[in-house]
Formats: sequence, structure tokens, C-alpha cells
Amino acid sequence: MTCGVPHIDLPPLPGIAGLLAGYPQTAEPLNHLAETLLRGPSPLSPAQRETIAAYVSRRNECTFCAETHGAVARRLGTPDPDPLMDALLAIADRVRTDGRSVTAGDVDLARAAGADDRIIHDTVLIAAAFSMFNRYVDGLGTLTPADPADYDRHAHVLAEKGYLR
Amino acid sequence: MTCGVPHIDLPPLPGIAGLLAGYPQTAEPLNHLAETLLRGPSPLSPAQRETIAAYVSRRNECTFCAETHGAVARRLGTPDPDPLMDALLAIADRVRTDGRSVTAGDVDLARAAGADDRIIHDTVLIAAAFSMFNRYVDGLGTLTPADPADYDRHAHVLAEKGYLR
Repeated sequence: MTCGVPHIDLPPLPGIAGLLAGYPQTAEPLNHLAETLLRGPSPLSPAQRETIAAYVSRRNECTFCAETHGAVARRLGTPDPDPLMDALLAIADRVRTDGRSVTAGDVDLARAAGADDRIIHDTVLIAAAFSMFNRYVDGLGTLTPADPADYDRHAHVLAEKGYLR
Repeated sequence: MTCGVPHIDLPPLPGIAGLLAGYPQTAEPLNHLAETLLRGPSPLSPAQRETIAAYVSRRNECTFCAETHGAVARRLGTPDPDPLMDALLAIADRVRTDGRSVTAGDVDLARAAGADDRIIHDTVLIAAAFSMFNRYVDGLGTLTPADPADYDRHAHVLAEKGYLR
């Protein structure tokens, strides 16, 4: 079972899958961005990056994105809570709310927990990108599956093969 | 003169230019996305699309993005206000705030003013993408020029050559 009535005519696929299938021209740079951010070279592991993506999506109450990336993070091995992830999630939440709300103190806390410039950069950009993906998915009223098994099937593919297929 | 102290070490270039120069790996999909959204095939003109980008950035109070894309739209010929642009900017403002706030009534108004599915899709995705770019630029505390001439020089290049250089 899925919930929602999309605002535009789309293939009957849940969440961003319907948008990527229906609008292949914009799907290409969006998939490329997701692959670069979540699977490309970074000092953060894919599991850490998926956890940031899931956290931002959860805080934005984008059910499709939160369930999907939460399931991907679990498959990749959700990182244990530690001071670094706590500090990065705090920065991600600031970015999600308003980029200007990130303070030097937030960044200092992350650095004290082991973050370097690249980690701070990647955290901010992942949080910003999911502020986009969440709005794209919800702004067009895409379908949200109600069954957790639907997310887990999708997450299996994303965990194994990434975002370029 | 520029304002701001970036949270990470970056080349001394304003706004997203410093981020794109300092982080070329993520610059590539971001530039590709901007070019596709603002210059690729669409029923909306580049001037209409830059106007949506500038409007979202202004409402998000991202000075660098608002000044830059406002200047690009002026160079391309800012579209006259009309019921279609009014309805699209209203949708863009909903998306900017929270994707879930877009209503069937907002979409109906846009359709009555001449929008088709593709126009609604492109408007939502541009508004979502600038919700990302604004957060990326402000979340890392990038430099904001104070002199309008700096934006106009940058806008000249973007208006003439687009986002892939």
C-alpha cells in the first residue's frame, strides 16, 4: 500500500523513484550528485554519510527519504554514536534549518571531536542536498509506501549498487 | 570589499565560487545540475528560471545567491510579472518553506495560468535546488561581496556562458 496523490502525472513508483523515471534529464545530475556525496571519496564512510542523510530527512519529516536512507545506513552498518557523529549531526540540523545558523562554536566542537575541513564540508553539503531531495519528493506529492519491507527492498539495491544504475 | 569568515579554508573567491574551486569533486555534479536546471531544455525560459532561483534565494536571505541570480535574470531580461510567474513563485515559496506545504490548490492556480506538468516539475526542482545551494553557501560561511559591481561581473559570465566552464 502507498499513500499520496502526486501533483503531476508520474510513473507509479514511490518517492524520488517516480520523479527519476518520469524526468530522466534531471535524474542524471541528481543521481550523479547522490553518488558523489554518499559513495564518492570522503573521510566519512558511506554508513556515516547515509546516517547524516537519514537524520536530515527525518528532521524534515520526509518519510520516504528518512525510511529509505535509514534502511541503507542499517544495511551498511549504522555507525555507533560517538562525539564526532553527534557534532556532525548537530551541524547538519543547523544547515537543514538555515545555513546561516551554523556557528563557529558548532564547527569548533566538530574539530575537537576529530573533524577536518573536508569532513565539515561534506557534512554541510550532504545536509544541504537532502534539504533539496526532501523538498523535491514532498513538493510534488510523490507516493509514500506504508510497508517497511518496500523500503528495505529499495535499500538493498542502494546499499549494494549505489545511485548510478 | 567582502564580508564573512568561512568555517573552512577556501580559495579567496566569493560565495559558491570558493566552494567550487576548493572542492572540485563535488563541483562537477553541482555545476551539471545548475546547468541542466537553469539552461537545459524546459518550457520555462532561462530568464524565468533565474527569476525563480533569485526569488527563492532572496526569501532564504542568501545574499550571495540572491544578488548573483537576480543580476543574471536582469541580464537575460527579467520576465514581466504575469499570473503564471506569480503562481510559480508562490509554489517556489511553499517548496522553500517545506515541500509538504504545496497544495493541490497552488498547483491548480498554476495550471489555470498555463502551467503544464513539466513547468510545475521544473519550478519545484529549481526551488528545491536553491534550498540546497543557499544552505551550502551560507552553512560554510562563504564570503559575500558588498559591491553590486562584483555580482554584475559574475552575472555577465553566467548569463553568457552558463554553469559549465
